Amino acid sequence: MERRVEVGVLGATGMVGQQFIRFLQGHPWFEVTWLGASRRSAGKKYVEAANWTLDGGVPESIARQTVHEAKPTNGAPKLMFSAMDASVAGEIEQAFAGAGHFVVSNSRNHRMEPDVPLLIPEVNAEHLEIIPAQRKNRGWDGAIVTNPNCSTITMALGLAPLKPFGIRKILGATLQAISGAGYPGMPSMDIVGNVVPFIKNEEEKMESETQKILGDYAGGKIAHLPAAVSAHCHRVAVVDGHTVAVSVELDRRPGVDALADAIASYRGIPQQKSLPSAPRQPVHVMPDDNRPQPRKDALLEDGMAIAVGRIRECPILDYKMVILGHNTIRGAAGAAVLNAELLLEQGLLD
Amino acid sequence: MERRVEVGVLGATGMVGQQFIRFLQGHPWFEVTWLGASRRSAGKKYVEAANWTLDGGVPESIARQTVHEAKPTNGAPKLMFSAMDASVAGEIEQAFAGAGHFVVSNSRNHRMEPDVPLLIPEVNAEHLEIIPAQRKNRGWDGAIVTNPNCSTITMALGLAPLKPFGIRKILGATLQAISGAGYPGMPSMDIVGNVVPFIKNEEEKMESETQKILGDYAGGKIAHLPAAVSAHCHRVAVVDGHTVAVSVELDRRPGVDALADAIASYRGIPQQKSLPSAPRQPVHVMPDDNRPQPRKDALLEDGMAIAVGRIRECPILDYKMVILGHNTIRGAAGAAVLNAELLLEQGLLD
Amino acid sequence: MERRVEVGVLGATGMVGQQFIRFLQGHPWFEVTWLGASRRSAGKKYVEAANWTLDGGVPESIARQTVHEAKPTNGAPKLMFSAMDASVAGEIEQAFAGAGHFVVSNSRNHRMEPDVPLLIPEVNAEHLEIIPAQRKNRGWDGAIVTNPNCSTITMALGLAPLKPFGIRKILGATLQAISGAGYPGMPSMDIVGNVVPFIKNEEEKMESETQKILGDYAGGKIAHLPAAVSAHCHRVAVVDGHTVAVSVELDRRPGVDALADAIASYRGIPQQKSLPSAPRQPVHVMPDDNRPQPRKDALLEDGMAIAVGRIRECPILDYKMVILGHNTIRGAAGAAVLNAELLLEQGLLD
Amino acid sequence: MERRVEVGVLGATGMVGQQFIRFLQGHPWFEVTWLGASRRSAGKKYVEAANWTLDGGVPESIARQTVHEAKPTNGAPKLMFSAMDASVAGEIEQAFAGAGHFVVSNSRNHRMEPDVPLLIPEVNAEHLEIIPAQRKNRGWDGAIVTNPNCSTITMALGLAPLKPFGIRKILGATLQAISGAGYPGMPSMDIVGNVVPFIKNEEEKMESETQKILGDYAGGKIAHLPAAVSAHCHRVAVVDGHTVAVSVELDRRPGVDALADAIASYRGIPQQKSLPSAPRQPVHVMPDDNRPQPRKDALLEDGMAIAVGRIRECPILDYKMVILGHNTIRGAAGAAVLNAELLLEQGLLD
Repeated sequence: MERRVEVGVLGATGMVGQQFIRFLQGHPWFEVTWLGASRRSAGKKYVEAANWTLDGGVPESIARQTVHEAKPTNGAPKLMFSAMDASVAGEIEQAFAGAGHFVVSNSRNHRMEPDVPLLIPEVNAEHLEIIPAQRKNRGWDGAIVTNPNCSTITMALGLAPLKPFGIRKILGATLQAISGAGYPGMPSMDIVGNVVPFIKNEEEKMESETQKILGDYAGGKIAHLPAAVSAHCHRVAVVDGHTVAVSVELDRRPGVDALADAIASYRGIPQQKSLPSAPRQPVHVMPDDNRPQPRKDALLEDGMAIAVGRIRECPILDYKMVILGHNTIRGAAGAAVLNAELLLEQGLLD
Repeated sequence: MERRVEVGVLGATGMVGQQFIRFLQGHPWFEVTWLGASRRSAGKKYVEAANWTLDGGVPESIARQTVHEAKPTNGAPKLMFSAMDASVAGEIEQAFAGAGHFVVSNSRNHRMEPDVPLLIPEVNAEHLEIIPAQRKNRGWDGAIVTNPNCSTITMALGLAPLKPFGIRKILGATLQAISGAGYPGMPSMDIVGNVVPFIKNEEEKMESETQKILGDYAGGKIAHLPAAVSAHCHRVAVVDGHTVAVSVELDRRPGVDALADAIASYRGIPQQKSLPSAPRQPVHVMPDDNRPQPRKDALLEDGMAIAVGRIRECPILDYKMVILGHNTIRGAAGAAVLNAELLLEQGLLD
Repeated sequence: MERRVEVGVLGATGMVGQQFIRFLQGHPWFEVTWLGASRRSAGKKYVEAANWTLDGGVPESIARQTVHEAKPTNGAPKLMFSAMDASVAGEIEQAFAGAGHFVVSNSRNHRMEPDVPLLIPEVNAEHLEIIPAQRKNRGWDGAIVTNPNCSTITMALGLAPLKPFGIRKILGATLQAISGAGYPGMPSMDIVGNVVPFIKNEEEKMESETQKILGDYAGGKIAHLPAAVSAHCHRVAVVDGHTVAVSVELDRRPGVDALADAIASYRGIPQQKSLPSAPRQPVHVMPDDNRPQPRKDALLEDGMAIAVGRIRECPILDYKMVILGHNTIRGAAGAAVLNAELLLEQGLLD
Repeated sequence: MERRVEVGVLGATGMVGQQFIRFLQGHPWFEVTWLGASRRSAGKKYVEAANWTLDGGVPESIARQTVHEAKPTNGAPKLMFSAMDASVAGEIEQAFAGAGHFVVSNSRNHRMEPDVPLLIPEVNAEHLEIIPAQRKNRGWDGAIVTNPNCSTITMALGLAPLKPFGIRKILGATLQAISGAGYPGMPSMDIVGNVVPFIKNEEEKMESETQKILGDYAGGKIAHLPAAVSAHCHRVAVVDGHTVAVSVELDRRPGVDALADAIASYRGIPQQKSLPSAPRQPVHVMPDDNRPQPRKDALLEDGMAIAVGRIRECPILDYKMVILGHNTIRGAAGAAVLNAELLLEQGLLD
């Protein structure tokens, strides 16, 4: 690629926006040239508008850029990453899509709409075929593509290799990292030396989003997988990395070894096309009994691969296993960037 | 009670033995007068033989007692608490029972034997009726009674109030405290800021022990509950308190409110007889969405009550809930002492 | 005492106010009958006005009391505990003192004023002699008495036994618990697995308050101790208990053993008069090399005693030691209640 | 460099040995071709002999190498890194030096011997001039060079830029990471939610090693800096990164700004010669009040740079500051490798 594609970040000053900016530093295809935020930040230099909370400082190429108000204007790039808070993301993303932009969003607002892809490039790239219908339905020149919630993507990508065996039921209990709650997020008095067995709306997202992600595209529609999904969500005192203990029931039981082989050999378009942010192997099977562990394994393949361990029989459903993913990389900024890479590779951004 | 019953502690110098000694300080019925340990410790003063790792020092009434080798001898009290490591508990407990002692054990060795009660006094006091058969089978004057594993007791006592609805399936995912692994237990490098998704033999214990505890005594036998039980066990960086996320399937679905009422109104013999270590209410239902939490709730009723929260419908089994118990109190020393209180109240120690 | 003294709590709905309410439950001398908070809370039942964040629920005797606006009114008790935020405590405390109330404050606003005692009852009870001057200066019928900052009180009480040797220099480096920052306090993303080497204004408070506390009352004035004090303050991922590593220079060097004896044998008026909240021994010397530790030792004597360990020679100043105190008990609510007990015992509340 | 220099690792199977092996992977100058361990491991493949505890697996180029007994033999490379436990390092390192090897050691055994350099390449490269005397004294063809203890190197390198102002007194209080204690190291029950105010022999090492490191080479001898050094050492629940709160007294007080400039502009031979493991800037000054923090800043320049913050006046000594370093990188394996790079660059390995 001779020249990098200019991209914008909506919600650029927040914690997720900062993660987008950091993840995109040095990206071979994309260059951040437009930063959108609230009216309050508009007109300021980024380094003044943002309360940078990530390690390392504001990247130099970003620090002096002027922040724009997050509305479509001349000069805004066609590709927009949305890191906006759900309280405002809905209307603004629609405004950009209506103005011809391609919005690749990490926000939850449009994830469950029937004509919006909820994309994991290895899993359901064919869901992108809904985009012409989306444009037609809404009269847009642009489009919106979303990525799943951070715990959902971990579980769904970890289980996607089992789809050929017919997934009937998924029960997942999470042990989620504090970085999933953003900044300031959880008060330390609530989580140091503790477990909090509740994350607002998280179980609902895991249950519904998983069905959509694992569903087929057929007859011009995204059909949800008719599997029952049940989630128990917990916050633990881990910085990065969501762990999910999963029991799964299948139409056909291949046996533990065949299941492990199916998981380890799973590949998708990102691997076939060698997309820049794609892991070589999207899901790794860890042999040791006591793995995966978030502090030791979340950064597998720079945080873009999922780790699965302890595949064994379940006395109630068919199999049990532990699935781990990096919630702010594969579960957020990295997920959206990989989505955009797929869009570019498939010619959808032309 | 005019005069306290003398008791011994087998394995008195280890961490669990220390917890027994601490729990029994000031006990209205029992007085520790005999300390048994390995031959290496025999003859030493307790304060010299034990590497005391609990908060506060060695109780004064114990510090100067001489440690005995853990084998039946003249002068050893009839009631013996066993806190021995599983590697040696099997034979020694049998020797004491054979010599006429009543061994109330926290060790795992005899838990699953058909003629040994695996006792939670609120739940299965009638299992004590097996003792005559135990004595006959083994030619003992004494007997062995055991308490369950720390995570099992938490889940089993929390679910016992559901037994009238017919328990068919139990799936539990644990978040277990580090104190459950004893001392030195887990290396800090493995658990600080981390989750370890494996505890050796723990899932097997939760699955088999739960079936025995919740089974009926009928026809001169302890029948196991014919329910499927599946456990996922994890260690987290919590000091005390095991949390278990449970999904359960029942024969009859009473509805969430009736289930909560059944749990909160559950009482057993320890409450009816006001046993000294019995909680007023064995299982509490917590109304807040984000409770129970180990650091805040494990010490409910001095650590002898179980807390249940977030009772809700499960898309796969019938109901989901969160169950919390204090692993070293209700899950170990307190469990055994309550067992002994029941034995005394029922005249079994006469 | 036949009948308990009625007391009020200013700032009753905040976290420190909650700690006062909890600490005063079952107090033999004091009964909370008046709750003051902001106008926004006035008129509501306490249980509705307060977002209770402590373990256990709102005490029953408090839950249904009506919250008052925090200004002097008929019926408000003479003795008022102030747990108000520093942003409002200054004027309100003065208004109550002017209206004849005795304000026992945990807030920082008046601590350093020359005519206000900064009281640790074991250390400087004679500073109460300034009260007539305070009343005269300000034309008040009431008065204000304050307790020190939580890290200051730990270090100052731990070092007070050394005053007879002539304290010249105190250098203290703290490792402070997160509960010292209140609720919500520190974001978990800042402190889990981390150290934060800065607490706003804390070093200044430790340096100036220590000099005032350890000063003499002479010539009708509170003279500050002319010792140099230097503090380094750090936050660590501990729930309760501030640890301070101290080096101290003295006029006379008694030797390590004599120093330990002086610390362990230190007693004050609270011990002589057996005040209800007084520890039997205000400062304990711990013999083990690796103590005191916050998780294991902060609750010494129900959190009202200070623990000192590792007394040894310092190559730069004269001696080094580690001092530990419970920051929300001896460092806040317990400190103020002990102050009020001293006032009552000395007849100042008549 | 056309061809990489072959190196050995003594104590290769232990945790520090593993860190050496990991740090040396892909090193442009050195290639690990010889692995030494105890007789018990000799003859086994490395992957079988070592219980690999670091993240990521055993590097492929190492896994199949055969482990040797750690004694001088034909074929062992001239340059040997020593990661041996202090209980055995003394004699074995001497045996290798006597057999002509250049031993670059992380062990404490020879650090304080007068004719052995205790090297930080930026600080005291001239101490290498003692090597001919070492060889002559001991009749060795080889030599031993050591690096300091992990907390010492952090403090000493952070303070080295102040040497021109005349360092008189250094008082340091540490908050040290658990990785400094190796594996299994501290039991989790001792450190989760806790502080341990004692690390065996650590204060003594910080006090004596700092004086040697900062001393001059003159008259054929390494003179110790005649400064008083006092250390308070604490373990905290941080994974990597030692924080040290330092007060320092100088002959000349340059002012806070000049001090910061001196620190930030400090450079040494590793920077001048661009040694492969050298940080661009050995000591960074962080502008924010609440930095450096171990979890966020320990990996500065891949863990090879030291971070200093909060430079301010001290009421007792002259200046206070916070110094942070990565204990297993700059404080251990990285330190030794940088030492070896300096040796190679200066022609000492020819």
